[in-house]
Amino acid sequence: MKMNKIIAASLVASSVLFANPLIEKAKTMGLQAIPQNQNELLKITDPNGMITPERVELGKKLYFEPRLSKSGIISCNTCHNLGQGGADGVPTAVGHMWVANPHHLNSPTVYNAVFFKSQFWDGRSPHLEDQAGGPMQAAPEMASPPALVVERVNSIPEYVEEFKKAYGKDVKVDFATITSTIGIFERTLVTPSRYDDFLNGKEDALTKEEQEGLQVFIDQGCTTCHNGIALGGSMMPFPMVKPYKFANVGDFKGDQNGMVKVSTLRNITETAPYFHNGQIWSLKEAVQEMGTTQLGKDISDADAEKIVTFLKALKGEKPEIVYPQLPESTLSTPKPDFN
Amino acid sequence: MKMNKIIAASLVASSVLFANPLIEKAKTMGLQAIPQNQNELLKITDPNGMITPERVELGKKLYFEPRLSKSGIISCNTCHNLGQGGADGVPTAVGHMWVANPHHLNSPTVYNAVFFKSQFWDGRSPHLEDQAGGPMQAAPEMASPPALVVERVNSIPEYVEEFKKAYGKDVKVDFATITSTIGIFERTLVTPSRYDDFLNGKEDALTKEEQEGLQVFIDQGCTTCHNGIALGGSMMPFPMVKPYKFANVGDFKGDQNGMVKVSTLRNITETAPYFHNGQIWSLKEAVQEMGTTQLGKDISDADAEKIVTFLKALKGEKPEIVYPQLPESTLSTPKPDFN
Repeated sequence: MKMNKIIAASLVASSVLFANPLIEKAKTMGLQAIPQNQNELLKITDPNGMITPERVELGKKLYFEPRLSKSGIISCNTCHNLGQGGADGVPTAVGHMWVANPHHLNSPTVYNAVFFKSQFWDGRSPHLEDQAGGPMQAAPEMASPPALVVERVNSIPEYVEEFKKAYGKDVKVDFATITSTIGIFERTLVTPSRYDDFLNGKEDALTKEEQEGLQVFIDQGCTTCHNGIALGGSMMPFPMVKPYKFANVGDFKGDQNGMVKVSTLRNITETAPYFHNGQIWSLKEAVQEMGTTQLGKDISDADAEKIVTFLKALKGEKPEIVYPQLPESTLSTPKPDFN
Repeated sequence: MKMNKIIAASLVASSVLFANPLIEKAKTMGLQAIPQNQNELLKITDPNGMITPERVELGKKLYFEPRLSKSGIISCNTCHNLGQGGADGVPTAVGHMWVANPHHLNSPTVYNAVFFKSQFWDGRSPHLEDQAGGPMQAAPEMASPPALVVERVNSIPEYVEEFKKAYGKDVKVDFATITSTIGIFERTLVTPSRYDDFLNGKEDALTKEEQEGLQVFIDQGCTTCHNGIALGGSMMPFPMVKPYKFANVGDFKGDQNGMVKVSTLRNITETAPYFHNGQIWSLKEAVQEMGTTQLGKDISDADAEKIVTFLKALKGEKPEIVYPQLPESTLSTPKPDFN
């Protein structure tokens, strides 16, 4: 019995010492695990030490708060639904007055967005705290002027009290503090998966088929863009080689240099439809379309299926979210406005 | 020390034996506590023994499931938000294509709706399992034909599996089973408060001011309609004595006999604006308006304020809701339809 334990222990050790060459290869290609160690993770997700339990709890309330929208019925969670992979499952985001995004842009996931180098499809926002203010103001999303958001929140004494608890009694509950608090909550939306266990040395965390898929993913060149912790999140030219099949839907052309944000592949099975204009529902078709537009090659059905098998293993464990009880409006709270 | 304990014990005993006359009065007037004993509670909330953990968990997912709507972005929780007192905080419900309820009806709370004698403002539905199918189909709400709801749910294998776990492997996942499962979840949305502790004999559960408010509430005749566990939930004529101040907004006149569902007063501070057409934001004004329309009397400012003090004590503890992770669509899932 004792000997068995020793053998078992040495097997575990050897799997770390003589790592699966695929793990080494993946790391060489820039793939990175979500750190298991919480302090290591926080160094990445919270480099400026903004996260505290009070701010995260308050940020969660604000994330689910429909009164941040002009109408009072649209919250961050409406389009970035934490029960639907952090997105909305529709091609084009629809917001205030049932108006679709004028550029036909698809809502990207908020899960693991903390690992992105920048936010929005054109990468125009440097971090989550800044990003959160965008959709709140955008006419076809939440349509709220900042002054309205500030007035609504400040009209609710429980919110003001919570801001004081989170930032000290002299806090100014302004638009920047409100959006920043939402960003702080979003920093906690990280979803570790079996893939991370694999990269961290647990060889059997991925099945043979999934490992084969990862190998094909690397061999085909997918890691050129889909790398880092998020397997995405940086800006790349799009399309790079051949035109995108659905380029005619919407007028989005990326930033001023034609660069488009690379989508994260984590939880990708939960965030269809794909691409900036949400025109492709099949993950296999999306893989093959990427082969065409970005790599200039036809990825075979067999290889695309293998890649999809790997991508499925990127589905991570979501943080448990207790649905927040929102404080009551007062008579001085600005009323809902549906126009 | 020992003597002190005996005295303390006898004081506790006496508070039960010689109950506060206000407790007796309240009960005589038809007010009832939410039973503390879980078996007693279940006799009321689940007389037919439909509740099981699997059905409640599945019902919760369906309650938060936007794909039950034609567009894919409106769920039960959109208008009956469990973080906002089970309602939406806007005068008139707005749904599919941003269309407001044609009768200007306000979304009633789902919390404690299990205690209502019937559902909807005109009481046309006998129970929650039946009610759940209404808004799902209504054009200005979720706008889903039953066939679409059934096709969407059946296209998602995880849902079908969960229905089998909840009802047995031969279950037919039809519209009635889907809406019924949502109703079963809603049966658990019960919010006990300090008021219930008071009715159950804990005299100091309500402050003196709240007890005084309850006394005025009874003396003014409010319990004529606001009685039972829900302090509401039955059908009564409206208006009974004088016209309602905002009768001109919308065309709702109650059922064929002019009867309107009495709103529950539990969590009433969370469910403004008030009345079937959501035209009054101030709880005090609502109390006084009820005095006029239903009791034919002017309730003084002082008395209305006392009643409001009591009503605030009806804010109950909400069940903890862990936000559900919804299963993924498949390629055969009918697509979102925004038209």
